[in-house]
Amino acid sequence: MAPGILADDVAVSGAVAKTVQVDSRQLVKEEQASHDIVLKTFRLLIADLCQQYNGGHPGGAIGMAAIGVALWKYVMRYAPHSPDFFNRDRFVLSNGHTCLFQYAFLHLTGYKAMTFDQLKSYHSDRYDALCPGHPEIEHEGIEVTTGPLGQGVANAVGLAMANKHLGATYNKPGFEGLVSNHTWCMIGDACLQEGVALEAISLAGHFRLNNLTIIYDNNQITCDGTVDLTNTEDVNGKMRASGWNVVDIEDGCFDIAGIVDALENSKKSDKPTFVNVRTVIGLGSKAAGTADAHGAAFGAPDVANMKRAYGFDPDQHFVIGDEVRRFFANLPSRGEGYVRKWNDLVAKYEQAYPELGANFRDRVAGKLSSRWKELVPAPGTFPTAPTASRAASGLVLNPIAKELDNFMVGTADLSPSVHMTWPGKVDFQHPDLKTGCGINGNYTGRYIHYGIREHAMCAIANGLAAYNPGTIIPVTSSFFMFYLYAAPAVRMGNNTHLPKFPLLIQANNFATGALQHLKVIHAATHDSIGLGEDGPTHQPIELATLYRAMPNIQYIRPGDNEETAGAWMAAIEAEGTPTIVSTSRHKLPQLSNTKREGVLKGAYVLQENEKAVLTLIGVGAELSHAVGVSEKLKAQGIETRVVSFPSWRLFEAQPLEYRREVLRRHQIPSVVIEPYAATGWERYADAGVSMKTFGHSLPGTAAYKYFGFDVDSLTTKVLGYLEKLKQDELLRHEFVEL
Amino acid sequence: MAPGILADDVAVSGAVAKTVQVDSRQLVKEEQASHDIVLKTFRLLIADLCQQYNGGHPGGAIGMAAIGVALWKYVMRYAPHSPDFFNRDRFVLSNGHTCLFQYAFLHLTGYKAMTFDQLKSYHSDRYDALCPGHPEIEHEGIEVTTGPLGQGVANAVGLAMANKHLGATYNKPGFEGLVSNHTWCMIGDACLQEGVALEAISLAGHFRLNNLTIIYDNNQITCDGTVDLTNTEDVNGKMRASGWNVVDIEDGCFDIAGIVDALENSKKSDKPTFVNVRTVIGLGSKAAGTADAHGAAFGAPDVANMKRAYGFDPDQHFVIGDEVRRFFANLPSRGEGYVRKWNDLVAKYEQAYPELGANFRDRVAGKLSSRWKELVPAPGTFPTAPTASRAASGLVLNPIAKELDNFMVGTADLSPSVHMTWPGKVDFQHPDLKTGCGINGNYTGRYIHYGIREHAMCAIANGLAAYNPGTIIPVTSSFFMFYLYAAPAVRMGNNTHLPKFPLLIQANNFATGALQHLKVIHAATHDSIGLGEDGPTHQPIELATLYRAMPNIQYIRPGDNEETAGAWMAAIEAEGTPTIVSTSRHKLPQLSNTKREGVLKGAYVLQENEKAVLTLIGVGAELSHAVGVSEKLKAQGIETRVVSFPSWRLFEAQPLEYRREVLRRHQIPSVVIEPYAATGWERYADAGVSMKTFGHSLPGTAAYKYFGFDVDSLTTKVLGYLEKLKQDELLRHEFVEL
Repeated sequence: MAPGILADDVAVSGAVAKTVQVDSRQLVKEEQASHDIVLKTFRLLIADLCQQYNGGHPGGAIGMAAIGVALWKYVMRYAPHSPDFFNRDRFVLSNGHTCLFQYAFLHLTGYKAMTFDQLKSYHSDRYDALCPGHPEIEHEGIEVTTGPLGQGVANAVGLAMANKHLGATYNKPGFEGLVSNHTWCMIGDACLQEGVALEAISLAGHFRLNNLTIIYDNNQITCDGTVDLTNTEDVNGKMRASGWNVVDIEDGCFDIAGIVDALENSKKSDKPTFVNVRTVIGLGSKAAGTADAHGAAFGAPDVANMKRAYGFDPDQHFVIGDEVRRFFANLPSRGEGYVRKWNDLVAKYEQAYPELGANFRDRVAGKLSSRWKELVPAPGTFPTAPTASRAASGLVLNPIAKELDNFMVGTADLSPSVHMTWPGKVDFQHPDLKTGCGINGNYTGRYIHYGIREHAMCAIANGLAAYNPGTIIPVTSSFFMFYLYAAPAVRMGNNTHLPKFPLLIQANNFATGALQHLKVIHAATHDSIGLGEDGPTHQPIELATLYRAMPNIQYIRPGDNEETAGAWMAAIEAEGTPTIVSTSRHKLPQLSNTKREGVLKGAYVLQENEKAVLTLIGVGAELSHAVGVSEKLKAQGIETRVVSFPSWRLFEAQPLEYRREVLRRHQIPSVVIEPYAATGWERYADAGVSMKTFGHSLPGTAAYKYFGFDVDSLTTKVLGYLEKLKQDELLRHEFVEL
Repeated sequence: MAPGILADDVAVSGAVAKTVQVDSRQLVKEEQASHDIVLKTFRLLIADLCQQYNGGHPGGAIGMAAIGVALWKYVMRYAPHSPDFFNRDRFVLSNGHTCLFQYAFLHLTGYKAMTFDQLKSYHSDRYDALCPGHPEIEHEGIEVTTGPLGQGVANAVGLAMANKHLGATYNKPGFEGLVSNHTWCMIGDACLQEGVALEAISLAGHFRLNNLTIIYDNNQITCDGTVDLTNTEDVNGKMRASGWNVVDIEDGCFDIAGIVDALENSKKSDKPTFVNVRTVIGLGSKAAGTADAHGAAFGAPDVANMKRAYGFDPDQHFVIGDEVRRFFANLPSRGEGYVRKWNDLVAKYEQAYPELGANFRDRVAGKLSSRWKELVPAPGTFPTAPTASRAASGLVLNPIAKELDNFMVGTADLSPSVHMTWPGKVDFQHPDLKTGCGINGNYTGRYIHYGIREHAMCAIANGLAAYNPGTIIPVTSSFFMFYLYAAPAVRMGNNTHLPKFPLLIQANNFATGALQHLKVIHAATHDSIGLGEDGPTHQPIELATLYRAMPNIQYIRPGDNEETAGAWMAAIEAEGTPTIVSTSRHKLPQLSNTKREGVLKGAYVLQENEKAVLTLIGVGAELSHAVGVSEKLKAQGIETRVVSFPSWRLFEAQPLEYRREVLRRHQIPSVVIEPYAATGWERYADAGVSMKTFGHSLPGTAAYKYFGFDVDSLTTKVLGYLEKLKQDELLRHEFVEL
């Protein structure tokens, strides 16, 4: 788009302020006289906000001031009074510790929740503050929670993929503006060092996501000192080699026009764009350009000096003058103009394409057709032959993913292992890509090859889910053990509160939607020493414990096909809670009493026995082992009952009475059988056959035997425990590892 | 080194075979006639090994055959009969699933443990097999356990750093060969996608580790198909931009001479070298060049056809002809020549530099001077003012790290936060680097700026520790929460068995040493919601549970200065077990009864009370809260006792009697106080005040209060529990979250 030409995607109809009609590059020139006071005001505001409670991260936000003005005043399309406007540009602050940067602009641009009072709550002890130390998704104007470095880049890649996918699926000639937002990702030096970002950068280049711009706050300072303590690479060269368009901005502290030009150009690139902006951390303070400006307030004398140098009154704090207020004043109305224009477009689209329009309406509303329930194989219709539960995962999910467009399924290069493909699946790829193996795709595709990038996969999935609640339900897949690589991103998927700000109801429903916990489903296979030869590096022992302890995630280990149906039902029904469906590599026998409803309750009685002297708890891939032990013991005249226990989280949600009925711990002791660390089973069992060491590279059945998880060894251990209990009266106060 | 010139570092004295005296580039030409049969034999051997049990990963190993010949026959310096020869080249198979590649060469080159019978144990159910599905450190000739992709690259960077550091510390003019080994790292396409490798590559370029060569098995195939499904970047360009020397080999399947030339040249580079070798996965089989060749045997008919095409008898298996045996026959004697020459050099070095020589001897033997115990502040000598336990970590470790050269301490860019620097510390850096902040260093430096690369930091630390047992004790440091980023590498640090093969005693002790569990210490600070404003993304809730459940790692949360001393003592005393010392950001009161000896036992009675009706268990940063509750309750006439419980792992190692005495669970109930997930505390307590959600961004004391961890709220909760216990007789069978 040449300077001076009316920008179609900026122009809005009706009573919107004249300025909106102007090209951003022209506007930035017209308003140049105000930039000085705007930048000074912003920088002093940040200094004051950190100074008031003597903490926080001032330097980055101050250095990035001109970038922020370029974005919020000139380049980004958003609506402060309709923060969830569907076709808004998405902004991700991957260097989340500079959150004041975003909070201050949310305030200045007119986001209603971000009152001046709220802005000043940064680092206060207000429980209801909207200015946490890192941006959090539940607050207005925040797209994703950031803080753990590097992940924001991957979230932004996910947001850009969501836009590409929805645009390719719904946009039509004349309706290119239906899904046409851009994604802007702000990063610091650290994000370029973190592996998760490097993985995502590589993939974004591969997918040619030209709707994504990374803005690099290149201040060359980290906590320890200058970046060259740890990084002396040619960053631009690396980005170009990764398939990115690269632009340099030399004077990033003041050159708003230059930044606007670069950002506008980036929207026209055929690749993702990396804008390398030289800034000075903590500009204007004594600590400027040093690590001291990073993570501490400047001190009152220095802030006062800054004010003097800027021509401000050193005794006044939090000063936002009229000129500055006026500078940002038109943004809410400009935003509502975008919203109206888009709503008009959608109305016309629905007329032109009634069926697709209705489908689009559902997607925007985040609706998932209840038809998914009909697609789950009914009880009794599964194959009765031994089946790996990873294969059962495919039997359940594949038909759903095939039929329902909400699902975007992907894998970290384990398609042959994870059973997540369906007949006729189309890959998400740039349409021009011609692969060596002849498997091509386009942006309508809903199967994602993430590459061997587990961490980025899950962080990208968070971005896909965060695009708009329910519009896309991402499913990731890999070996369970590699969800340790991905764990920081899995954590971030559920690391949110429920939405706090009220739903903003618009004239029609299209411009609404409330952010919520991310709904991401992780299909994790090879979840047991039964996976065999790959050995201890691939055999999870302690990983389930992490996910069982992690707040707000459903970790589910189903024991056969029927239970796998239950696991996926729980995953799809969960609102605001991610799920890991944890399955076996090897074939499992199909048990007669398993129940999907039981899985939904977390645990249930598989075999009741009123005469039982012991409860055997079986789990997942080894559930049949517990059944086998029960049979062996019965043959020796010892009566037991069997409980299937696929999910702690779901079980804990049941009433106390149900839980007592299932476990009967006050009546008889219970023994859990699971080749994992016993940690946490103490809550449900008195003893356990568990793992205290890492695994061993052996064929699956041999590995079970080596560690005593074959039915014979297990039976001997359980008998030993019963014997021991008789001899040591204190034992029931101590969980016993057998 | 020009071709044809005698290579000083290859030449050996005495009765060693003539061929050793020849430059490798000349030798490879002389022996060219044998290469065809060697490569064919090797490839068929791999095909047979996978076919016998119908499993495994044949394709990569077959594709890499020529690389292997170049390495083991011509380029690498090693001693098959002295596998732990101190100055050997280190080889890391980062694409660990191609382990047969390494096993077969270990067999062919004469490693004693790798008998033909053992080689054929690949994928068998032999418990004592030396051919697990991925290479494992406890076996002869294996430097590090690999398998989880990408980490091997970082391990190799650590091994190369260890060499640089020891060389800079001990080598003298005329003694450049004292520590002069090269590190060779084999990778596949996947390693170039994993973030941990990308982090390590960037750092290796920064450190200019010209003693490191990555050999890229560029077969362009992963599980899902061709690499261009997920990666279309300019790999060479990216490596050059990262500060690497790049060399291409076009015919990597056959051009042994070209590979040798490239590898020899790489030893003379001033940067680390990336040799990009084009190969064909599964060369010779029907599946050649496709994903089918990756992770499954080829099938008997295909293997038979390969044999026919190669002029072998299709009915004979595992054929290694005389010419091939002869080809590798001289390697053990060549290796012993290296060992003798090096031992001679060391003897002369000890004469020339008696003090340094004695020091070097200790380092090679992995000895840590017992003087470290004297450097730990004695009980009662710590400051009594409130002190953050992260600062206490510094008080304990800094003097030790300063004095004892074994320690190499590093941080993921959190020097100001982790308190791990000491006066006069020298950074590990290339000596020519001049940083913007003026903090320079050289390779003798023992303080490592890892950058914001937590995962690579811990994987590199594993490499530092694996260089030779005990020679280097790496200490990493970061916020505790970011040890979730690093978790896959922390896991690998302890994911080993004890050494299985017998110590190989040499003429003197220098060429010996047995691989063992890696001794790495992780200093993790900010381990509690008490860290405050950084909020839920930085507040660990479930992470301790992971490390408490993980086999063979000591996770320790000390409660004050005295306990922090105990934690570091446990860490330094542990042989073959890594440790996490988990400390607070905020200041902790110093308690009167804390005991370092108590920490070494995992848990101990802080305040006994014979009339107690309840045990209060306090942990780490919140230990003083438990003491506070006890005092409050006493004021209300309720007698309690207090147990300090810094480490489950250490406690579990105590005799049953001690454990019962500390907990007294059969006499009175106990309540644990810790703002983490309760998971696993059920083993030691009947109830707990714990966290069920993520944290909240608030100042530390406000965060404690918000979640009910201030002493008043805690007291109310504990009183409520005592009341509840009276009413519900079933309750003691159920862990209660208060």
